[in-house]
Amino acid sequence: MSKHDATPEANGAAGEPRLSRASVQRFSLYLRHLERWKKEGLEVVSSSQLGDALGINDAQVRKDLAYLGNLGQPGIGYYTQELISALRYRLGVDHTWNAVLVGVGNLARALLRYGGFAQQGFRFVGLFDADPQKVGQKIDGLQIHSPEKLAAVIAAERVDLAVVAVPAAEAQQVADALVAAGIKGILNFAPTLLRVPTHVSLIAVDLAVQLEQLAFLVHLAQQESTDAR
Amino acid sequence: MSKHDATPEANGAAGEPRLSRASVQRFSLYLRHLERWKKEGLEVVSSSQLGDALGINDAQVRKDLAYLGNLGQPGIGYYTQELISALRYRLGVDHTWNAVLVGVGNLARALLRYGGFAQQGFRFVGLFDADPQKVGQKIDGLQIHSPEKLAAVIAAERVDLAVVAVPAAEAQQVADALVAAGIKGILNFAPTLLRVPTHVSLIAVDLAVQLEQLAFLVHLAQQESTDAR
Repeated sequence: MSKHDATPEANGAAGEPRLSRASVQRFSLYLRHLERWKKEGLEVVSSSQLGDALGINDAQVRKDLAYLGNLGQPGIGYYTQELISALRYRLGVDHTWNAVLVGVGNLARALLRYGGFAQQGFRFVGLFDADPQKVGQKIDGLQIHSPEKLAAVIAAERVDLAVVAVPAAEAQQVADALVAAGIKGILNFAPTLLRVPTHVSLIAVDLAVQLEQLAFLVHLAQQESTDAR
Repeated sequence: MSKHDATPEANGAAGEPRLSRASVQRFSLYLRHLERWKKEGLEVVSSSQLGDALGINDAQVRKDLAYLGNLGQPGIGYYTQELISALRYRLGVDHTWNAVLVGVGNLARALLRYGGFAQQGFRFVGLFDADPQKVGQKIDGLQIHSPEKLAAVIAAERVDLAVVAVPAAEAQQVADALVAAGIKGILNFAPTLLRVPTHVSLIAVDLAVQLEQLAFLVHLAQQESTDAR
């Protein structure tokens, strides 16, 4: 689907060790736990606490966190706030990202009502739908525009990210328009494989693929339990 | 989040080589393309066609497909139908999987209207919501039940998979009820990390994590372009 899904390794900046996509995904998960713990008043955390939370061993946690610099204190652990700041900086979410959402159906409504985005520094600044019935309506204070306005809104609001939630048949055309308008990254929920130039990042969330992967894990577990008999 | 997200390698049946989670994800993607090509009348495909479609090289395609047995013909390629059957068998989707969906909000409606599931062999046999206003209503012919009926429906319909689309605060309680009712795999959309016993498979789709990962890729690309100057 994208170069990033196909090749699991992402290169760091020049000279830095390569960071696996799995490590980067764990960065997001460490961040979730740390933010919760910070709210609960935890000022210091250990690698084994983080490991327990993610179901991995603490050596892996220490290896992941070593990418952030020399942060842990032997015998003490990591300062929660320091680790949060380092993770947010490394992930590039230490500032707000503006995003647009194209295709205002049930999925879009679910995404907009899902509080997690604003909290993590993502701000939807425009909604787009080709349906003339929807254009002009508002959802949670955000107006739905015609797709003709994509380029203008993306330029005016300095938007880097787009979420594509249109039907499969329309998705490539929408992606092309987003790329032409200067978007830097696309999160695609349409069940189709999009083509974008290499300078544009793409992450695809195909919901049927997720369910299929789950079925595979269950299938595998059933096979293993049969083999073990 | 789950053992499967934390450890990217999945063990095959005894004695088989280990299959990476990335390969298994590509199996789903190969399958999507092959099914489309088959509809279009393509009886034979090559590893480079599949590689082009996924944006990877054909050596990786051949390596992935070697897990399915000795299927390719030198100088000819792969028979489309044979490869589809082998992939569906290996993924465990050569039969229908029954699933339940807990939490009937916008996301659930989006999932139910998304045609891909039925086509891939997934059948939703029950919807559940704790809101008494929703219980008894129907969506696309499927009735919404009270969560009290979970165990009865899961047993009666021989359900293996569950999709959790409730708010974060309710998700663990729902997962516990599903596990107690004998469910084998959970696809979690609630933005929280669920704990399930090791015999239950878990895949989590945290939508904020996906957007954060995309921001990271864009951030990385921006850094690399700065470094290159």
